[in-house]
Parts: sequence; structure tokens; C-alpha cells
Amino acid sequence: MVATIHTLTTERPPSLDAMMGLVAADMNGVNAVILDRMQSKVALIPELAGHLIAGGGKRMRPMLTLASANLLGYPGTRHHKLAAAVEFIHTATLLHDDVVDGSGMRRGKRTANLIWGNPASVLVGDFLFSRAFELMVEDGSLKVLRILSHASAVIAEGEVNQLTAQRQIDTDEDHYLEIISAKTAALFAAACRVSPVVAEASEDAELALECYGRNLGIAFQLSDDVIDYASDAATMGKGVGDDFRDGKMTLPVILAYARGSDDDRDFWRAAISGRRVSDEDLAQAIRLLRSTEALADTVERARQYARRAIDALAMFPGSKAKSALVEAAEFAVSRAY
Amino acid sequence: MVATIHTLTTERPPSLDAMMGLVAADMNGVNAVILDRMQSKVALIPELAGHLIAGGGKRMRPMLTLASANLLGYPGTRHHKLAAAVEFIHTATLLHDDVVDGSGMRRGKRTANLIWGNPASVLVGDFLFSRAFELMVEDGSLKVLRILSHASAVIAEGEVNQLTAQRQIDTDEDHYLEIISAKTAALFAAACRVSPVVAEASEDAELALECYGRNLGIAFQLSDDVIDYASDAATMGKGVGDDFRDGKMTLPVILAYARGSDDDRDFWRAAISGRRVSDEDLAQAIRLLRSTEALADTVERARQYARRAIDALAMFPGSKAKSALVEAAEFAVSRAY
Repeated sequence: MVATIHTLTTERPPSLDAMMGLVAADMNGVNAVILDRMQSKVALIPELAGHLIAGGGKRMRPMLTLASANLLGYPGTRHHKLAAAVEFIHTATLLHDDVVDGSGMRRGKRTANLIWGNPASVLVGDFLFSRAFELMVEDGSLKVLRILSHASAVIAEGEVNQLTAQRQIDTDEDHYLEIISAKTAALFAAACRVSPVVAEASEDAELALECYGRNLGIAFQLSDDVIDYASDAATMGKGVGDDFRDGKMTLPVILAYARGSDDDRDFWRAAISGRRVSDEDLAQAIRLLRSTEALADTVERARQYARRAIDALAMFPGSKAKSALVEAAEFAVSRAY
Repeated sequence: MVATIHTLTTERPPSLDAMMGLVAADMNGVNAVILDRMQSKVALIPELAGHLIAGGGKRMRPMLTLASANLLGYPGTRHHKLAAAVEFIHTATLLHDDVVDGSGMRRGKRTANLIWGNPASVLVGDFLFSRAFELMVEDGSLKVLRILSHASAVIAEGEVNQLTAQRQIDTDEDHYLEIISAKTAALFAAACRVSPVVAEASEDAELALECYGRNLGIAFQLSDDVIDYASDAATMGKGVGDDFRDGKMTLPVILAYARGSDDDRDFWRAAISGRRVSDEDLAQAIRLLRSTEALADTVERARQYARRAIDALAMFPGSKAKSALVEAAEFAVSRAY
């Protein structure tokens, strides 16, 4: 698969380096808030939270909050607390996701639920979620609270929606987009939207950044779905085939099932229902995903969402921040090549 | 055990009837909000939430919000949404508690995790928790948001604290009071405190109702701890001995262990570590709890907290609401006779 979103001026592959450089100083501020506010006299809380928060995440969502603020020339530091709140919400959902999926690996490390058990992961997730709201309340913007409390409800709704679609072979592309718009894209969108609120930017700027974040989130999720079936997924930090073994109807599977022969469709029914999940079955799944071009077309869908994200930034004049946000969208797709 | 908190004017045992009568009309408003806001296009959400919310709870916490507002003569309806938010937070913690404890029965019914599985209970809990915050944000009082977001963080911290104390025979009374002050009393206190805020009552009224709620919560929890070892716990809707089998260090066990002979202490160590949890072991535990007066003294402790709750109401003139709040405190203790 070869993909070009727009003509790159250099030959280097897109990365998050520009964005990380742009927000480095602010991210120190966010990390200080995160470290400070995950503390508790109950030692298990910082221990378990720190395992996930300190370990290896790229801080994508808080980075988006910071880059969006930079784009708008916001001179303050209110967004540090809010970016930390966004990361806490995200961490809480990861802790609960790993319990729900019974996952054993994340970001190349053993999951918290594997080390400390499901009960601890559930309860520390609840703690981080509550802490996120405390941080938002301290900031004091009801508009920000509205954006992030709504996003949280949408995420949880999306997670339940995904759970009910699990092992359901008849899940279609529309249903799947509804799921990932909620469980993934809503927090990306909210992370981008809080900055124009604190920067007191225009309603148009708010909607533009919300649109950027939402489409970027979908692009990231679709790439993740492809990576889960990539034969070399060392960069992911989780095993190939997790979605397959969990019977998750992601877009690659939806496309391959729709396009398959009768035999192929029998295979997918057996696989998604959990009756064919051996390594050989996974290899067979990957063969079918390739022969039906389901992986390539999922990348193509991701590319379209990344384009939409980039187009949403049209109203903003050129700047380092804008270039960094554009490159982040290119990066989202390029990961799945 | 015979207990008298203050001289009752009649011979009937204390109940929640007066409070339920007092708030009946308002509770219809709260129930309407609850039913409306637990809806979702994802059918599993109202189905699972409804199982717990519709089924058999006494709505203690929202009732306290309503009775507190009545005490202050608050004429509005803003507290309906906030009482619903309090009930959603409580329901979310129950859903997660049952996952954490692996419980199979609550309020005389099979638990949601038993029927729909742990993943659904975790995620629907998250949804209700988010919905609670959406309701508070709609109300728009940052002060209320501060009270309830802080209470939520304290609850989660208390739950983790309890988890780390589980099967730890050296848990002492101070540690236990710290746990239940957080996991139970914090939400009772917050439920009572939001009403003086919306009623724009004095800071003194706020602190008095917060103090009432906090002490009432502890009294309720200590009574629950006794009931879990009562030989006839049909009214509880859960099985006798749940805490025993879970290795929970509740106050009755803490007292019995402190007062026991060397043999008794050996027994408790084996029981709390999970090595002696048969029905005969439970019968033996109940014998020791009685012979050491651990149950009677836990009820006595509960009575002291109930008194403190009642004393906290001293600043308020006599009214139906005040009588109902006083009787609720008497009821909290009388359940464990």
C-alpha cells in the first residue's frame, strides 16, 4: 500500500515529532498536574495509575489540547489542567477496556488488570474519572464541563454499543462507524474543542477544531484496526490478532465478510463467533483481508477521514501548530501502511 | 439487644415512612428524571440500569436530598436533577461493587453482573456516572459540582482502600472508619449538602446537613455490617455471610478479633484469609461475634453516630422534615437490632 495525503515537502514519513516539539514545554506542565493529581494516601492508586500513565503512552489527546491552544495563540496555562483531565478520562477508559476485553498486554507491558486484578483496575479507573471531573470543576468553565461530561457519556455509550456488537457477524459499516465515533472520536473531538473555549476563540474555531479532532479520531481508530491484523505489529505494543480473538467486528472484517465467497463467509462466521481463533485461523483471516482488499480499503477510509480533519483546519492561517496538526493526521494513516 | 436513641412518643419502631411521605411528590419528579436520563439508543443500557434502578432500592440518598430541601423550605425543583445525579452515582458504584466482589445477589434479585456479565456492568456503570455529571452540569452550580465530584473521588479512593484491606487481619477500627467514611458516608453527606446550596441557605446550614449525612452514612454502614452476620437477614435481600466469605474486615470482626482468645484469633486469621469459610465456620464466627459482644458494640457505635447525626440538626426549628430526618437516623440503627 502506498499512500499520499498531500505532497510532502520532504521524503521523511509523517510523525508526531513536530507536534511533540511544539508542545514540549506545555506538556511538562500537564505531566506535573498528572503526577500531582494521581496521588492518594491509598498507595495502590498511584502505583496502578502510574503503571499506565507513566508508561509509554504518547499522550495523544492532551497533546491535541495543547497544539490546539497553540494554534489559537492562547497565552495562558488553564489548558494544562484540562489536558490532564482528558488524559485521566482516557486512562480510566483504558483500565476499564482491559478489564472488559480481558487484555493482558498494552503498550508493550503487562496490563494493570493482569498485575493487580480486575477489581483494582475498575476502582482506580473510577478514581481517575472522578479526579478528571475535579480538575475540570477547579478550572470552573461550565462550557468545558459540558463538553467533557457529554463526551464521557458518549464514550461509555459507545463502549456498551461495541460490547453488544461483539461476535455479531451482521454488524455493518454504519453501525461500526457509530461505535468508533463514540468510543474513540468523541474524546479526540473534546480534547481539541476545550482549547478554543479557554482561549475564548470564535464558535467557528470551536466547531473547526471539534471537526478536526473527530475525524482524526476515526482515522486513528481505523488505522488501529488495520494494525491489529498487520503481520508486523511490534510498534503497537499489543499482540496481533487481539480483535480477531475477541470477535470484534472492525471495519476490515466487515468489508472482508461483505466481499467474501460463501466459504469465506462461513469462515468469518465461525471465527467471529469464537469457534475458529487459532494462529492458523488468524493467518487465514489475514489472507482473506488481503485478497478482498479489506485492509487496503480500510486504510483508504482512514485517509479520507484524515483529509477531512485537515480540511477542517482551512480557516486557520499557516503556522507551526497548523503544520503539526496536519502532520498528525498524516501520521494517523501512515502507521497502517 | 435493646436500644433507645431518644424517648419515642409511640411504640412503633422507627421507619422511613415519614420521610417517604414527606418527599413523595418530589420523588415522582426525581423518578421521572431518572427514567428519562437512563435511556439510550443502545438497548442494553436502560435494560441493565433499569434492573437495578427500578428494582427495590429505597432511594435513600435522593430521599435525603429531598428531605434536606424540605427542611429548608426550598420551593424550587432544581434538586430533582441533583437527586437523580446522586442516585446515578450510587447505582454506578453498586454496579462496580458487585463486579469487584463477584456478588450474585442484591436487593433480593440476581445482580446485573450475574445476568449480563462483568463487562456490561462496568461499562453501564461508567455511563451512569457520566450521566450524573451531565445532570449536574445542566443544573449549572459549580459549588454542587465541586461537592459531588469530590465525593465521587473520595468514594473511589475508599473503595480501593477497602480492597487493599480485604483479607488483612490487622485492619484496625481507625482504618475501617476511614474506609467507610469514604466509601459510604461521603455520598450521604454530599446528598444532604447539595440542598442548602441550591436553597441558598447559610454556610452553617450546609455544614450542619453535611454533618448529619456523614454520620448517618456511618450509622447505616455499621448497621449493614451487623446485619451481614445476623441469623435472619431476609430483609436485606442479600445472603448472610457475604462479608465473611469475602474476607472483609468490618467492625464486628475487628472487635471480635481484638477481644478473642488465642484460639479465636487463629480462627479469625484462617477465616479472613479465606481458609475457613464454610457454613459451619460462619456459624462459629457468629458465635464469637456474640460472645465477645462485637455485634452489640457495633450497634452501640452505630447508635452514637446516629446521635451525632441528630445533634447536627439542632439549629433547625421543629418541622415535619426535621422529625423525618431524626427518625431516619433512628431507623438506621434499629435495622440491626
